[in-house]
Amino acid sequence: MATFTDIGVAAAMNILSALGFLMAFALLRLQPINGRVYFTKWYLNGERSSRTHSGTFIHKFINLNPRSYLRFLEWMPAALKMSELELIEHAGLDSAVFLRIYLIGLKIFIPITVLAFFVLVPVNWTNSTLKNLNSIQYSNIDHLSISNVPAGSQRFWVHLVMAYVFTFWSCYVLLKEYKIVMAMRLQFLASVERRPDQFTVLVRNVPPDPDESVSELVEHFFLDNHPDHYLTHQVVYNANKIAKLVNEREHMENWRDFYQLKYDRNPSKRPTIKTGFWGLYGHKVDAIDFYVSKIDKLSKEEATKQENIKTNPKHIMPAAFVSFRTRWGAAVCAQTQQTRNPTLWLTEWAPEPRDIYWQNLSISFVSITIRKLIVAVAFFFLTFFFMIPITFVQSLANIEGIEKVAPFLKPLIEVPVIKSFIQGFLPGIVLKIFLILLPMILMLMSKFEGFVSLSALQRRSASKYYIFLLVNVFLGSIIAGTAFEQLNSFIHQSANEIPKTIGVSIPMKATFFITYIMVDGWAGIAGEILRLKPLIFFYLKNLFLVKTEKDREKAMDPESINFATSEPQIQLYFLLGLVYAAVTPFLLPFILVFFALAYVVFRHQIINVYDQKYETAAAFWPDVHGHIITALVISQLLLLGLLSTQHAAKSTPLLIPLLVLTIWFHRFCKNRYEPAFVKYPLEEATMKDALEREREPNLDLKAYLRDAYAHPAFKKREDDDKVAGDEAELESIWCPPSTSHASGHQSPASSAAHHHRPYLMLSKNSDSTPYTTLIDSILPFFRIQTHDFIINRQIFIN
Amino acid sequence: MATFTDIGVAAAMNILSALGFLMAFALLRLQPINGRVYFTKWYLNGERSSRTHSGTFIHKFINLNPRSYLRFLEWMPAALKMSELELIEHAGLDSAVFLRIYLIGLKIFIPITVLAFFVLVPVNWTNSTLKNLNSIQYSNIDHLSISNVPAGSQRFWVHLVMAYVFTFWSCYVLLKEYKIVMAMRLQFLASVERRPDQFTVLVRNVPPDPDESVSELVEHFFLDNHPDHYLTHQVVYNANKIAKLVNEREHMENWRDFYQLKYDRNPSKRPTIKTGFWGLYGHKVDAIDFYVSKIDKLSKEEATKQENIKTNPKHIMPAAFVSFRTRWGAAVCAQTQQTRNPTLWLTEWAPEPRDIYWQNLSISFVSITIRKLIVAVAFFFLTFFFMIPITFVQSLANIEGIEKVAPFLKPLIEVPVIKSFIQGFLPGIVLKIFLILLPMILMLMSKFEGFVSLSALQRRSASKYYIFLLVNVFLGSIIAGTAFEQLNSFIHQSANEIPKTIGVSIPMKATFFITYIMVDGWAGIAGEILRLKPLIFFYLKNLFLVKTEKDREKAMDPESINFATSEPQIQLYFLLGLVYAAVTPFLLPFILVFFALAYVVFRHQIINVYDQKYETAAAFWPDVHGHIITALVISQLLLLGLLSTQHAAKSTPLLIPLLVLTIWFHRFCKNRYEPAFVKYPLEEATMKDALEREREPNLDLKAYLRDAYAHPAFKKREDDDKVAGDEAELESIWCPPSTSHASGHQSPASSAAHHHRPYLMLSKNSDSTPYTTLIDSILPFFRIQTHDFIINRQIFIN
Repeated sequence: MATFTDIGVAAAMNILSALGFLMAFALLRLQPINGRVYFTKWYLNGERSSRTHSGTFIHKFINLNPRSYLRFLEWMPAALKMSELELIEHAGLDSAVFLRIYLIGLKIFIPITVLAFFVLVPVNWTNSTLKNLNSIQYSNIDHLSISNVPAGSQRFWVHLVMAYVFTFWSCYVLLKEYKIVMAMRLQFLASVERRPDQFTVLVRNVPPDPDESVSELVEHFFLDNHPDHYLTHQVVYNANKIAKLVNEREHMENWRDFYQLKYDRNPSKRPTIKTGFWGLYGHKVDAIDFYVSKIDKLSKEEATKQENIKTNPKHIMPAAFVSFRTRWGAAVCAQTQQTRNPTLWLTEWAPEPRDIYWQNLSISFVSITIRKLIVAVAFFFLTFFFMIPITFVQSLANIEGIEKVAPFLKPLIEVPVIKSFIQGFLPGIVLKIFLILLPMILMLMSKFEGFVSLSALQRRSASKYYIFLLVNVFLGSIIAGTAFEQLNSFIHQSANEIPKTIGVSIPMKATFFITYIMVDGWAGIAGEILRLKPLIFFYLKNLFLVKTEKDREKAMDPESINFATSEPQIQLYFLLGLVYAAVTPFLLPFILVFFALAYVVFRHQIINVYDQKYETAAAFWPDVHGHIITALVISQLLLLGLLSTQHAAKSTPLLIPLLVLTIWFHRFCKNRYEPAFVKYPLEEATMKDALEREREPNLDLKAYLRDAYAHPAFKKREDDDKVAGDEAELESIWCPPSTSHASGHQSPASSAAHHHRPYLMLSKNSDSTPYTTLIDSILPFFRIQTHDFIINRQIFIN
Repeated sequence: MATFTDIGVAAAMNILSALGFLMAFALLRLQPINGRVYFTKWYLNGERSSRTHSGTFIHKFINLNPRSYLRFLEWMPAALKMSELELIEHAGLDSAVFLRIYLIGLKIFIPITVLAFFVLVPVNWTNSTLKNLNSIQYSNIDHLSISNVPAGSQRFWVHLVMAYVFTFWSCYVLLKEYKIVMAMRLQFLASVERRPDQFTVLVRNVPPDPDESVSELVEHFFLDNHPDHYLTHQVVYNANKIAKLVNEREHMENWRDFYQLKYDRNPSKRPTIKTGFWGLYGHKVDAIDFYVSKIDKLSKEEATKQENIKTNPKHIMPAAFVSFRTRWGAAVCAQTQQTRNPTLWLTEWAPEPRDIYWQNLSISFVSITIRKLIVAVAFFFLTFFFMIPITFVQSLANIEGIEKVAPFLKPLIEVPVIKSFIQGFLPGIVLKIFLILLPMILMLMSKFEGFVSLSALQRRSASKYYIFLLVNVFLGSIIAGTAFEQLNSFIHQSANEIPKTIGVSIPMKATFFITYIMVDGWAGIAGEILRLKPLIFFYLKNLFLVKTEKDREKAMDPESINFATSEPQIQLYFLLGLVYAAVTPFLLPFILVFFALAYVVFRHQIINVYDQKYETAAAFWPDVHGHIITALVISQLLLLGLLSTQHAAKSTPLLIPLLVLTIWFHRFCKNRYEPAFVKYPLEEATMKDALEREREPNLDLKAYLRDAYAHPAFKKREDDDKVAGDEAELESIWCPPSTSHASGHQSPASSAAHHHRPYLMLSKNSDSTPYTTLIDSILPFFRIQTHDFIINRQIFIN
């Protein structure tokens, strides 16, 4: 078992690697050339651009000011400086509330840690159970844990009381936080500008009718049933085919721009290309004309197909976005049942346009029910049979295990440094690798279940991921490890004994989880800020693919908070903290460090890098709350199991009321606060409607809503036309070095580094046509690789 | 253990007692004097009255026609003759749908019984496991059961397949039935006349406001948020004090009527009474004047108090009935959230006026949450600690147990008849006595939880009662009995083994449950039709209390379907049937007899006796459905437990998909059909609104709704004034023997017996004032005793 020394070594290594990451980040972010990687958000906001002040050529790429290197941690206070209100304005409510999860971690665990160290540690330490034992299975960390209290001791009363105190404190914090977040959400919704989704309801499962088209059907139905409120509607088309054409056309347009640029700079020679495969052979033709004609052809094809889709009923889905005259009308329609048959004419709030997952809009009710069953079964198998490889690998990662399997490695492994490395790093890394593959599968499952908004998909995946982490990482690690250590005693136990076994094993696995926290929580979070992957990809793209300014925009990968994976990972720390609070308080400081570091890092990322694709006004909070409550309940159950094996018969049953109270608290919160995240109160709607009538009595709402819910493939075309215009405009002001127009709205965090951003020249291979064509053909491959990581970022990029 | 002979004896006894009850009923119902007990419903409908054709005096009391006695079972076909549509018209949808529960029982179990006897019985019978065993613990019934199949036999595949077939068949029937009931409900709601509750929403938790009264607050709020739809509202008063006064006044009025009648018949002498305690001493005064003056005084006091209540804000509850111009408006308001704070301004459909439980209207949200917790904990203790006495008594009721406790009784017990009696009757009776006390406690708990309608209280109590029966009667009987029989093997088992133990014990408890079914299901149901308690009470009241015609009306106790106790009891039979279908098919015919008999008996009772106090349009169906599904799941779990102990390792895990499918089926039905029982679709509302506008364009809805939701104590006064008028009218047509005006609308069941109903004379002690006063003082005592049995019948009687 790991000792203090092992943990010391692991901690040192992890702290070093974390510091290394932070140092590297500090150096890299100061280089102007990396601006688009580390200050993506500001570029997207338009408050920072490629064209900056004049300066020497070299200044455009490298920061030569030595003083700025001395303050390599200056980003930390800068990240904390922005107030929450500014943050909401800058990055949206979702991001601001997401950060509060880390804050809750600090709020819950700082007092718990203090209390645990002042009360529980002395209580545990002043026993001598482990000294008397033949303590092979125990490390000296366990002297601080509940394992050191002799069975049947009256001291367990202290742990019991502490469990009550910890639970009450956690619930108090959760209650307060729920209140605050609810207020923030309502405030946000009340202050938010007019948005199409406030007036719009998504109707699904429109029943087929032989005499009427979907559009007519929808109109008649809502004119009948909401006569005073119905305004207009938009049928949903299955436009996936067009989307493909649009992508191709955009690709061609990019090439056209590229050659146009080339020609503009060197008007003496019109660029040419070969028409054959990959531009390697064939006729030489004028490049600009070639692409212009191709674009023309594609545009025409697109227009025909669009017409075809709009008229062919086969492409019309039995769903529609129905808009109302007032928010009141929409609120009413979204919350009520329309017809006798509760599986037809299903209404719900329309997600905001960017948030819609178009593919799922046409799935029927029965199909969804069956899909849910299939996914539930599949998820069950995924969760429970995933454990087999994890158990196997982890058992190998155990020193004794490796020595048994491969005795010839023994001399190598017994070298103290390597031993510490294996014990400190390996189990955590094994776990981590398993976890990287998972979110994509879970997201696919959620998509299959038929949710219609990206945010719902994220929430759903997060819940699945949470269960998975719980079963496999938390319980799996405890049992698998224990299975190896207590092999004989474990195999022949009945299934009923498992909770007790887990409870008993918990103190023993403290060191494992400490190393896990250090690898995943400390070094991992520090790695997050370095953004190594986006950095490398940005350079690769710049080197090979960037031809036009638009390409450079695309080469930036702002990423965003990936709720589906981040939230469950934070929740794992809550679970660990709550479970170990009463058992091995020594683990708590490690969790505190994680929460503090993660808070600063993600605050920085949210301010400077991440770009949320949609805004749900913190709709995910009930999930977060529910997961923490689950962690509380699990911690109580395991403590119950642990105490029941310690012959503390008098005190143990007293944990049951705590369990009941915790579950009751959850139900109370659910009834009291959750509706604010699901429904839209009529009073609010009335107030906003009245306000708007007063302010803009002549508003043409119908025009405002006309294309709000058009399929992105249809919309893209219009947007593109607009963007093309913008681009032309940009090009016209392009030659003179413009003054930075960002100074007014700048982020405090970026104020030190926002100067000297050079316009990156066309990369040197800009005229080696065959080569770029080759690269361009490889691009899809990269795209496939990164596809799943940026699932929910596509809409915005376009 | 009980053998075929034991069961034969028990069956004979139960059949005899059942026949005895039926015979007694057949005799009693033919006597005209019992008309008000056995044809209550027709009296209440006004289609049968006390004044009938002329005839000799004796004919008014006793049926002397010998032929009618020969056909003593003729009520059975008569009860089945009425079509379902007529039944709905006659007794309401609730009653008609309630009968369908018994029909479902027949639909599910007839095919299952046939299949089980053709497939499972041969499979079980042709083994010889039990013959080879030292079969002390097994009776010969077990030769037909799964116990007779040797462990590890391939024959368990048959049981497995049958479990699938039984489940699929049950689900199919349930699905079809859900569809039918939903259609019936929607049809009923669509065809039903205009009712106040269609336009009205109950608002609770109106927040206090220092500046405005509740009434003003409600008006302003709904004028703001439902400006186009709000019509009027009615504040809820706490009028419990008035209710007391009203009762006293009614009592006095009854006395006045009595003396008035006396005087009318003997105008020569004005009746007098003494004013002292119980009319035993004091001044002699004129009785009519005395009561008239008393009534006057009370009426005045009532008026003052009413005024006081209406003006004093202390008596105004923070709740109101808000009515809308259209059904659409009410449907919208009931289904939406009104304000930011989801615990204020809670809206829900108003129950129909007769269905309201007024006392609970003022309970606040937080209070309800806490009350629910308290009730949940209390119910848990009630359920699990109730088992201690039941276990104790049942263990005594076991032959071997009695012999051990009281060896001197051995010679007596060993007499074959007594032994059979003890084994056949006693356990069932013990159980039954326990169960009689329970419903009142459960109803009190449900009331404490704060439900606002009587029907919701009934449903809630039913669910509690179902859980109770499940744990205590079903599981409790199995484990307790087993505990006594397998004492040694049982005490030291771990908690995990209990499901297996139950599974194993199930076949052994078949005989116990067969006797239970016979006592409770056969004799009990036959006893139900005899209505012994109402019959005795009716005679007692007639003898001592009935002074006026109104009293006679009151002396009738029509009862009604007590959903809170009847439904869970039926569900117990579903549970037994489903559990034993694959284990001991021999039990199934007993259940079939129960369902068939109960169907006929309750159909008769619903047609001729019961009088439902309110109509919920079968709102209870989702509960019924859910309970049957629960029974299915339990049966599968227990079969799983049973098979897993029989070394049928290959087949057992295949039961798990069945479990998953069953639960999924439940969720599917819940989503698909339940909304029809909870929500009110807007399309329906619109249609009914449009229809009404066309039919009655000038309807004054406000006037129609004005007093619909007044507190019964306020309303009573007005009703009484009206009733008094009716009575006067009755009295005027009273002297000449009127012709029966019931012949047109007569029930087929009553056609043979509706003649010769005499008007019962004032009872002989009609002028013994002190005596009647005494009796009248005792009356409240009777009332208290029967209070809980007639909880939900009070409103109508008044």
